[in-house]
Amino acid sequence: MVATDIATRVWNHTFKLDPIVRSLLDTDFYKLLMLQMVWGLHPNTQVTFRLINRTKTVRIADEIDEAELRAQLDYARSVRFSKREMIWLAGNSFYGERQIFLPAFLEWLRDFQLPPYELAKRDGQYELMFHGPWTHTMMWEIPALAIINELRSRAAMKDYGRFELDVLYARAKAKMWEKVERLDKLPAIRMSDFGTRRRHSFLWQRWCVEALKEKLGDRFIGSSNVLLAMETDLEAIGTNAHELPMVYAAMARSDAELRDAPYEVLKAWQSWYGGNLLVVLPDTFGTASFLERAPGWVANWTGFRPDSAPPIEGGEAIMAWWRSKGVDPRDKLLVFSDGMDVDSIEETYRHFDGRVRMSFGWGTNLTNDFRGVAPEDTPGLHPISLVCKVMDADGRPAVKLSDNPAKATGTPESIERYRRIFGTKAEISRDVLV
Amino acid sequence: MVATDIATRVWNHTFKLDPIVRSLLDTDFYKLLMLQMVWGLHPNTQVTFRLINRTKTVRIADEIDEAELRAQLDYARSVRFSKREMIWLAGNSFYGERQIFLPAFLEWLRDFQLPPYELAKRDGQYELMFHGPWTHTMMWEIPALAIINELRSRAAMKDYGRFELDVLYARAKAKMWEKVERLDKLPAIRMSDFGTRRRHSFLWQRWCVEALKEKLGDRFIGSSNVLLAMETDLEAIGTNAHELPMVYAAMARSDAELRDAPYEVLKAWQSWYGGNLLVVLPDTFGTASFLERAPGWVANWTGFRPDSAPPIEGGEAIMAWWRSKGVDPRDKLLVFSDGMDVDSIEETYRHFDGRVRMSFGWGTNLTNDFRGVAPEDTPGLHPISLVCKVMDADGRPAVKLSDNPAKATGTPESIERYRRIFGTKAEISRDVLV
Repeated sequence: MVATDIATRVWNHTFKLDPIVRSLLDTDFYKLLMLQMVWGLHPNTQVTFRLINRTKTVRIADEIDEAELRAQLDYARSVRFSKREMIWLAGNSFYGERQIFLPAFLEWLRDFQLPPYELAKRDGQYELMFHGPWTHTMMWEIPALAIINELRSRAAMKDYGRFELDVLYARAKAKMWEKVERLDKLPAIRMSDFGTRRRHSFLWQRWCVEALKEKLGDRFIGSSNVLLAMETDLEAIGTNAHELPMVYAAMARSDAELRDAPYEVLKAWQSWYGGNLLVVLPDTFGTASFLERAPGWVANWTGFRPDSAPPIEGGEAIMAWWRSKGVDPRDKLLVFSDGMDVDSIEETYRHFDGRVRMSFGWGTNLTNDFRGVAPEDTPGLHPISLVCKVMDADGRPAVKLSDNPAKATGTPESIERYRRIFGTKAEISRDVLV
Repeated sequence: MVATDIATRVWNHTFKLDPIVRSLLDTDFYKLLMLQMVWGLHPNTQVTFRLINRTKTVRIADEIDEAELRAQLDYARSVRFSKREMIWLAGNSFYGERQIFLPAFLEWLRDFQLPPYELAKRDGQYELMFHGPWTHTMMWEIPALAIINELRSRAAMKDYGRFELDVLYARAKAKMWEKVERLDKLPAIRMSDFGTRRRHSFLWQRWCVEALKEKLGDRFIGSSNVLLAMETDLEAIGTNAHELPMVYAAMARSDAELRDAPYEVLKAWQSWYGGNLLVVLPDTFGTASFLERAPGWVANWTGFRPDSAPPIEGGEAIMAWWRSKGVDPRDKLLVFSDGMDVDSIEETYRHFDGRVRMSFGWGTNLTNDFRGVAPEDTPGLHPISLVCKVMDADGRPAVKLSDNPAKATGTPESIERYRRIFGTKAEISRDVLV
């Protein structure tokens, strides 16, 4: 029998840190797209991002050791884009377009480093904030969330025996594969992985991505995770996020400018990107209000990503709007990405099949579904609704209303003002599970 | 990152044979106990063992390559008892008894080698026979069966991708663990592994044994596999098998001697072993006939192992017999080992709980249950009813009647003669699944 590799073993028993984020590409693709636009148009805008744990019952600061959290955040700050990563970004085609990233932007990226963070404990929660230029603070969102979520998993499994871990992952694989087999029954499904921020761990996300690639083939269109897309030869998926309209709105100097902000940001986006990257995220200040005031040219965009309305209701509202603009929904795309799981994917797919193009961005329930998997009930393995949101831009408070008031962020007064200006009703909250 | 261990990798890509049986202890414990008695009492008896595939629909010779089979059988013939194995056999206590193996027997074992085999193909089946002294041919039964069963699994998985294998074993582990969790709910269960001969593979058997040990603790009393018992610090479990009464019966010189053979063999066993090793296997020529003629002293033995009657019916018959001899079944042991799985274990346990001591020998459905586990239906992963039985002893045909005529072996004439002498009715066959 070949002996244990001594070097590997010594490496294992001496390492001080098992870094969670080991690459600046271990982030969502839309961050890079947004970053390029922000770098081009708003290099001096100062934006604060802040961690928000919507699952108040979970006291993260009791679960995760502060020194470990700091060590992981510090490690992430030490990471730079590597040479091969830069070459891949420069040489790859994204959504069929070559050289989507400008040479000057890539040059600037070469020295990029995650900026400092502020960390404090309060009432069993971590206050984690990122102050500085938007071009830098925005890049913390995904790694910060991935680090905290993986530290939670690690803490939950700290006392597991080797055998318990073996059964845990065997069950997780079996459970995941059952989901994949169900999706495989949907002939025209288009799936992508949106699970980086909420993942159980990086390695588990990679396994899930490989599982989807193996079974669904071309119907698995890619991963939002740039590193995984590169490593597993998949498309990097994503377009834009709420932070764009939130910052644009925060910087508005009048009620009229505020009312126009959601469309101004689309114009700016359109000046940078085309084709499949033209996906509208309509819910930042309420989808109904967005559609009501939307100019006709918005109907020329490729599609919409309803991200907080129930998928069927939200999709139908957008399709009705398209029809009102004389556009056939069958030429348009809906991207469903809000807390999807196999049941809701199947239901949504069957509801819209043949009536509109659609794709699914599968997040938390793809990369962090350990329900019924842990040998004994382990609350630390239940995902929580943890987000990292824009708090202010150039000193002015940022707001998100969303179609689900439980997802709203901002000070009470500014939320009130936004509701008045956008005419968004305070709808009934739905539980935010993930 | 630590590099791949080059030596291991080269070892992997150059090895010509991955041996299935790597130790002569990789066999059932009762073989060693029987061997010692045969060595002491019948050193010159010539016994032929023969492979029998009761699952005729499976054409083993089409599934398994003959050269691979020969290479595995040849490898097994090259194996000897190692020094540490001899030390463990000599120094260990079995069923609480020290030095169960005589020094002279161990001395003889030191040079033991599996004898030659005869292998031919006929009609899609292998004719595999072992001729020679009983002391040698008997030791082929378990390794021969384990080799053929593992070669079947390997052939079935030959074209699996790495990912499919990963999911296969993840599912198998998840399925197995569900069974273990059900057994864990039976507070006084006593389980043992009897799955060597029918195992999917050696490594899978080891995983199953470790799973049971982990979850059931002391309620998992051990493994029939001597090598696994040694490696995982468990008790080696087992007493005696049908080959003893079969050979004793075959050697009988008259009808009267034949009628007495099942009790003569117990006397011989009793002269060698005591205590927990005194477990009667009553069904060789039919349990009803065995009990009807059994002398009173048989009721002094520790217990019975009903191995072909339905467990509840078979157990009740034996308990009624104990009571007829004035013996309280609560002082006695029933060992259930015929095709058990969780459902029948639970049912049997609940039926007899508190009325008799019992333990379960779990075989095929422990170590080779891949039903619903393979990603696509793979017949080669379904266990078959493969046995290796005594065909003749000193040139005289050997017979097994069993409580299930589907398990009978022997020539039609000799089966007829045995039925007449033992008064065993040709009962209705029950399907032999495993």
